[in-house]
Amino acid sequence: MKGGEAREPRIVGDERRRAYLDLLSDVIYETESFFHEEGFLQLLPVMLGRSTDPLGPDPGSSVVKTVEIDYLGQRFYLMNSMILHKQLAVRDIGKIWILSPNVRLERPERAASGKHLFEFTQADFEIPNAAGDEVRALVERFFARLGSRLRGHPAFRSLDVPPPSFSPPWATYTTHELEARYGPSWEEPASRAERQPFWVTCHRREFYDREDPERPGHYRNYDLVYPAGFGEALSGAEREWDPARIRTRIGRDGIPPAAYEAYLEQADHLVPSAGAGFGIERLVRFLVRAPHVGDVQLFRRVPGETPSL
Amino acid sequence: MKGGEAREPRIVGDERRRAYLDLLSDVIYETESFFHEEGFLQLLPVMLGRSTDPLGPDPGSSVVKTVEIDYLGQRFYLMNSMILHKQLAVRDIGKIWILSPNVRLERPERAASGKHLFEFTQADFEIPNAAGDEVRALVERFFARLGSRLRGHPAFRSLDVPPPSFSPPWATYTTHELEARYGPSWEEPASRAERQPFWVTCHRREFYDREDPERPGHYRNYDLVYPAGFGEALSGAEREWDPARIRTRIGRDGIPPAAYEAYLEQADHLVPSAGAGFGIERLVRFLVRAPHVGDVQLFRRVPGETPSL
Repeated sequence: MKGGEAREPRIVGDERRRAYLDLLSDVIYETESFFHEEGFLQLLPVMLGRSTDPLGPDPGSSVVKTVEIDYLGQRFYLMNSMILHKQLAVRDIGKIWILSPNVRLERPERAASGKHLFEFTQADFEIPNAAGDEVRALVERFFARLGSRLRGHPAFRSLDVPPPSFSPPWATYTTHELEARYGPSWEEPASRAERQPFWVTCHRREFYDREDPERPGHYRNYDLVYPAGFGEALSGAEREWDPARIRTRIGRDGIPPAAYEAYLEQADHLVPSAGAGFGIERLVRFLVRAPHVGDVQLFRRVPGETPSL
Repeated sequence: MKGGEAREPRIVGDERRRAYLDLLSDVIYETESFFHEEGFLQLLPVMLGRSTDPLGPDPGSSVVKTVEIDYLGQRFYLMNSMILHKQLAVRDIGKIWILSPNVRLERPERAASGKHLFEFTQADFEIPNAAGDEVRALVERFFARLGSRLRGHPAFRSLDVPPPSFSPPWATYTTHELEARYGPSWEEPASRAERQPFWVTCHRREFYDREDPERPGHYRNYDLVYPAGFGEALSGAEREWDPARIRTRIGRDGIPPAAYEAYLEQADHLVPSAGAGFGIERLVRFLVRAPHVGDVQLFRRVPGETPSL
């Protein structure tokens, strides 16, 4: 298996799965209580949107298809991310978060990465008028608190895995540095080389990540990467909110504007914001060092596999 | 508007919506902490299932269609309920709960009920080897605790709505009694006649609700109904787990067995259980006396309306 350095479990089968799910339940609870304490309003998820994330131009994001649903003469997309909805929510409500199920019909070969699923849940949050460093500081607080809350969790003992020891602040690299050191597929070797999670900034990607106004071709976004080969933990950015720049970049990316009609109707009334989203299953997989992220799902959703139900 | 006895709000527009969402966020949080304290494991939701709820034979559940999705040669259904998944989860894991988004593409005329949405989130739970009275006692504890936790919430003051005063145990009626008193459309008049939520047992419905083995044609299920015309709050049952009875009832209901192939493969290994699910948006609508359940959604999902995004 490519990806994380998995451990041979001391316990197997149902007992192991029970320990994974026990920890997952507490990870959800600690995520809930963290955002509650930090004063975020929790929203309920949206599953059908008039627009959703284009999953491009990043070629690594390729999926078999985006699901389109006709309902009473209107076209909806099955949500693969609430990113565009978050921009409206943060404008109307202030700082918000959502436990958001995302469907991404990944190609079957993605199963081998150890970290792709065709449905998963992310904790997705957004803060109005925030800069990236405020978001990164919040994320580091989240992980430090999670590590201290879960240190004594019985799942680590029964799985014979060391409990997490997160010690932020964490190193920050640019994609340019990592490409120079590891080549274009830097994520896995960089992840294997590190002992703590680390930040990677300046990814060229979708139109909603803000381009640095003073340095065209540079982007005010940031991903968090787990160490030990477990790869991407979180993806975030300061957002593009200037309507002219949004329209230019949708055109530049060659995205069909029809799918963004509803979003573009709102684009004249956005506010600056920054946020991020992190996958709950990937977080639990990292904590328990599971071979595949699907191992921590009760109902496995691994591309190409036949689910039980 | 049919349905609940709505109040004229003291505050309007964005301010009113903000108060609704503020309360909704705390309702989610109190739901989380209740199930956590009660020792339930929280699962993440499933959106694509090989089988989902048939939404029948109850003629009131009629939808435009169930969404079918082909992915790598397999057919999935967009989940309108995790009921069948809960039966597997409770067998494998023990007592579980999920904050589960459900998509139900309701006919546009259902908008007038005040309580139907084409997507919503329910808190869905299940307990192995439980009887209905244990579930009903748990639900009553939930509402009593929620009322006491939310009593001082600022949303009630700003909306000029009295805070909830739930005083269980609540009255229980059978559908037969209510039909005799109010006719076949008993839900709304019965709801208008009551001052507290009340239980209604013995609904003839889907194959997964257990039929009373000693009284054929009677069902060991129970719904909770809000007072003041707000209608159904929660739906629950002891489950059918005997494989022969499940197969007989699927046949009796005229449900195409192809859509239940994956479920029937598991039907020989189920365990007795009981549980329930309650809609978060309906609960918040009842608490704030909103005219329509869509009013408490940031992204309204009312059948026949065009959503903003």
